[in-house]
Amino acid sequence: MSDLHISVFEPAVLREFIERVFVHFQVPAADAEQAADVLLAADLKGIDSHGVARLRTYVDMLTHQRINPKPRITIARAYKSVCTVDGDNGLGLVVGPAANRIAMDKADEFGSGWVSVCNTNHYGIASYYSLQALERNQIGWSMTNSTKLVAPLWGAERMLGTNPIAIAFPSAKYKPVVIDLATSAAAYGKIEIAKRKQQSIPKGWAIDRDGNVTRQPQDMIDGGALLPLGSERDLGGHKGYCLSAMVDILTSVLSGANWGPFAPPFALRQEIPTKNVGKGIGHFFGAMTIEGFMDVAEFKARIDTWIETFRKTKPLPGQKAVLIPGDPEHEQESIRLATGIPLIEPVVNDLLEVSKVTGVPLPFR
Amino acid sequence: MSDLHISVFEPAVLREFIERVFVHFQVPAADAEQAADVLLAADLKGIDSHGVARLRTYVDMLTHQRINPKPRITIARAYKSVCTVDGDNGLGLVVGPAANRIAMDKADEFGSGWVSVCNTNHYGIASYYSLQALERNQIGWSMTNSTKLVAPLWGAERMLGTNPIAIAFPSAKYKPVVIDLATSAAAYGKIEIAKRKQQSIPKGWAIDRDGNVTRQPQDMIDGGALLPLGSERDLGGHKGYCLSAMVDILTSVLSGANWGPFAPPFALRQEIPTKNVGKGIGHFFGAMTIEGFMDVAEFKARIDTWIETFRKTKPLPGQKAVLIPGDPEHEQESIRLATGIPLIEPVVNDLLEVSKVTGVPLPFR
Repeated sequence: MSDLHISVFEPAVLREFIERVFVHFQVPAADAEQAADVLLAADLKGIDSHGVARLRTYVDMLTHQRINPKPRITIARAYKSVCTVDGDNGLGLVVGPAANRIAMDKADEFGSGWVSVCNTNHYGIASYYSLQALERNQIGWSMTNSTKLVAPLWGAERMLGTNPIAIAFPSAKYKPVVIDLATSAAAYGKIEIAKRKQQSIPKGWAIDRDGNVTRQPQDMIDGGALLPLGSERDLGGHKGYCLSAMVDILTSVLSGANWGPFAPPFALRQEIPTKNVGKGIGHFFGAMTIEGFMDVAEFKARIDTWIETFRKTKPLPGQKAVLIPGDPEHEQESIRLATGIPLIEPVVNDLLEVSKVTGVPLPFR
Repeated sequence: MSDLHISVFEPAVLREFIERVFVHFQVPAADAEQAADVLLAADLKGIDSHGVARLRTYVDMLTHQRINPKPRITIARAYKSVCTVDGDNGLGLVVGPAANRIAMDKADEFGSGWVSVCNTNHYGIASYYSLQALERNQIGWSMTNSTKLVAPLWGAERMLGTNPIAIAFPSAKYKPVVIDLATSAAAYGKIEIAKRKQQSIPKGWAIDRDGNVTRQPQDMIDGGALLPLGSERDLGGHKGYCLSAMVDILTSVLSGANWGPFAPPFALRQEIPTKNVGKGIGHFFGAMTIEGFMDVAEFKARIDTWIETFRKTKPLPGQKAVLIPGDPEHEQESIRLATGIPLIEPVVNDLLEVSKVTGVPLPFR
């Protein structure tokens, strides 16, 4: 990103800006605060694609009344530790946290809680939700489907979203183990970056509109597709497809949401599917009470030893050390909490546009 | 395998042979029947590496009293929908089904059931367990850790097993959606096949003992390692590592089993880890009652439509169609139920050796 001008913002400043923007669109204050917390978590962890960079898209969707600012979130069906939540077409940033709280409450009551969610929208970073569970000494799971971008193995068209899986495990001495991965070989954002930098992409990321392997980002953008994790048959592309299918079914077939190619788009510019097979997109949350399996202190001590052991893995030639899942995000969070959140010029311009439309000021340092 | 002589066996004949062999080693009749059912399921589904081909290894382990033929399987700790099971060092083929039944019983009672298992051994194919749940209109999950073979991304040594994840979803008109994948880029069996055929392996499967990418199967066998799903950093190798870590923690850190590089070996010829961090290897089973999320008939109808939709995906140039997860195994099962189970000569020789040692006859057609 060194080719772009960067402005640095205090987290508290961005947080207030996001909150006030959502409130401007009739989102209740508590919900706006919650939504800002989810978005800001992405910016703090260095997952820039999922943070305030997306605020303008949420604003677009609220402006065009494609998202309900005041959803009545309900439990559509339940049996003890499991249930389906209907998000009433609210912001995913509001529906997600509410549904995740239900999962964690169920885990407190029944040992575990599992919530499939329909009628919702884009929910930010998957690991935000998994991390919430750690505060209750639970293991947290989170998944969501999303607009089609990925071809199933042997397919030549977009049928699945990048469908992430997140899970987090608490530790004692160290930062927690946080797993959060899209089930595609690469993120769509990486295709966009390669295009902007006029670079080719690695073989294994994408196919063109006819299904041929391509190294040109524009070929993917022009009706091509991302490949699932594993890329090709030989390297396990069928496995990434299976994982993406798993997420699609748990989040959206099971909840009554739109699955696969019928998931509605996140942004106005994206194509609206021709068919409706449910309500909105879908999420899936899980929480498990560690105390029901093992003494919590013992579990955390075991995780600490796990972390120490994996850090000591003999590294590849030229590599410093093996990383623990969550390391890059923990590192960014320490840095950004201390020095602020850097935003590239196009994002700042989007925020200035949002500021103009809503009248909410965006104070620079 | 066309280079090897093949003998075809009736499933019922192999089943009886396996049962009698286990009984010979003091395994109770009902447990022997259960163990044979798990092994035979692999052979019927065409997952030849995990079926009767492994009987000799189980026999070795029983002969050397490394596995307890008469385990007292206990619930070590529980809280409603979750618990830890201690397998008392029994056959995984016996402990696994018992623990999975506890998960399914809990799902009947609490909406879901989640069981982490320690003090167990190799449990056969992961999807056997997930499929059991479908008979109760549940969604079934299954994972296990195993002897170290896989390097974490940026690591140059074996630290994790091939740690599979399985999940199955019932359908109405069609065969169920069955996901079952090792979290490594390729199975160890594929390295062995390449070696036997004197072929090179694709880039992305393995590294040598110094951590260099290799295309020679022998380099992996001589102290090298398999790579996780995704292979390299660019193609998402960190994601396969994260998935393998997830399985390792859920199955073995959480249950009190040996995790990561300390998982005890499956076979006598494999190195015994220098350190003990728990009891045996670990499994993790889950079951969720569909009725708690959605009317079962509606869910199955939605899965049917999902299957139909994905089958109609525009295929890659030169490919007939996109497969549904589970297709290859369903197809093999139809064929083998009708025509028998083909075993290659080395496997038949192993069985003849087992027959000689135990006195259990192996009747050929």
